[in-house]
Amino acid sequence: MALKLHGIVGSPPAFRAMAALFEKDLDFEFVPVDFATGEQKTPRFLALNPFGQVPVFEDGDFKLFESRAITKYAAEAYANKGTDLVFKDPKKSAIQTVWMEVEGQKFDPTSSKLTWELFFKPIFGLTADEAVVTEFEEKLGNVLDVYEQRLTECKYLGGDRFTLADLHHLPNMHILMGTKVRSLFDVRPHVSAWASDILSRPAWTKVASLLRK
Amino acid sequence: MALKLHGIVGSPPAFRAMAALFEKDLDFEFVPVDFATGEQKTPRFLALNPFGQVPVFEDGDFKLFESRAITKYAAEAYANKGTDLVFKDPKKSAIQTVWMEVEGQKFDPTSSKLTWELFFKPIFGLTADEAVVTEFEEKLGNVLDVYEQRLTECKYLGGDRFTLADLHHLPNMHILMGTKVRSLFDVRPHVSAWASDILSRPAWTKVASLLRK
Repeated sequence: MALKLHGIVGSPPAFRAMAALFEKDLDFEFVPVDFATGEQKTPRFLALNPFGQVPVFEDGDFKLFESRAITKYAAEAYANKGTDLVFKDPKKSAIQTVWMEVEGQKFDPTSSKLTWELFFKPIFGLTADEAVVTEFEEKLGNVLDVYEQRLTECKYLGGDRFTLADLHHLPNMHILMGTKVRSLFDVRPHVSAWASDILSRPAWTKVASLLRK
Repeated sequence: MALKLHGIVGSPPAFRAMAALFEKDLDFEFVPVDFATGEQKTPRFLALNPFGQVPVFEDGDFKLFESRAITKYAAEAYANKGTDLVFKDPKKSAIQTVWMEVEGQKFDPTSSKLTWELFFKPIFGLTADEAVVTEFEEKLGNVLDVYEQRLTECKYLGGDRFTLADLHHLPNMHILMGTKVRSLFDVRPHVSAWASDILSRPAWTKVASLLRK
């Protein structure tokens, strides 16, 4: 078996890539990267990803980094396996890309700030900065207001079926559902239904189960 | 003529989209959005982009927002016009996507912080926060260190020819070249040569000339 995913359990980008590989029903080896010993800054790892970050994906001798590039490659190179995660029709594909960009440029920066403050900081024994939390709750609320409207028009963000435009949200959304920020999703009925739907997909529950081990 | 780009002269995302349309040799109407009167928050404009931002692109009755979704659509829907801005080969395309993600996730957040502090703040009569500038100069330098290495292997970030992976950098890079941050590019020979090359492309000089009007 020639597929490898280098990552850390609990890393949102690594889990984003892993969710796509499970959706595509691909067999792969998960290779844990030992950040405690600084493995990510060794020459061997920097040759895989010059930024010293996870995930890294290997398909034989072909190597990729950046989680959303990995999901896109998996979706396109293994088009006939597992769930179809992209649209082929040019206009549908362009609309999917709009919402993938919205995730990367608007949902991710705000939700990552909140996962850092409310989930990762406590793990490292640090205290959340409540002013930052309040500021980014408002920003995330503004993004979710647009999602609420979009999801009245369309069952999924990227179109009429689940695609990468939805999948990319899963890791941060999963984490935030265990924090007080959950209420931002709960008060918006279409967002709430969409979140429940995509978080309960078998591929995602398989990823999330790793967090409980 | 059915192509329209809604934007503001000087907006980096609007200029990113415009650069792609010029590269593709497409005739389009530039529709200025009057932020001074809050046009971007009117129902008519929010129907084009629910985030109330520029750019918005119209191709007949097909509408798109998010600058990088617009460039990708222009590159793919008008594949046979102007400059070829994407790779069709699946592996080359995946590598191009890696570097498009690097721009969106790493170059853009750091360079946008610096353009805000050093270029836009003075326009609005505000003073740059030197601590923020120092912090983000270091972050941008770290990104450009990776670019320097990449550009020793490859003439362009995305591969052996100019693609969207390079083009997406142009607006912020152009602005930073007029600030003290220019030195971060100048001290890295491959980055400096790459920047000069892509900034002197006719499509970009056509965009940049609008700033001088």
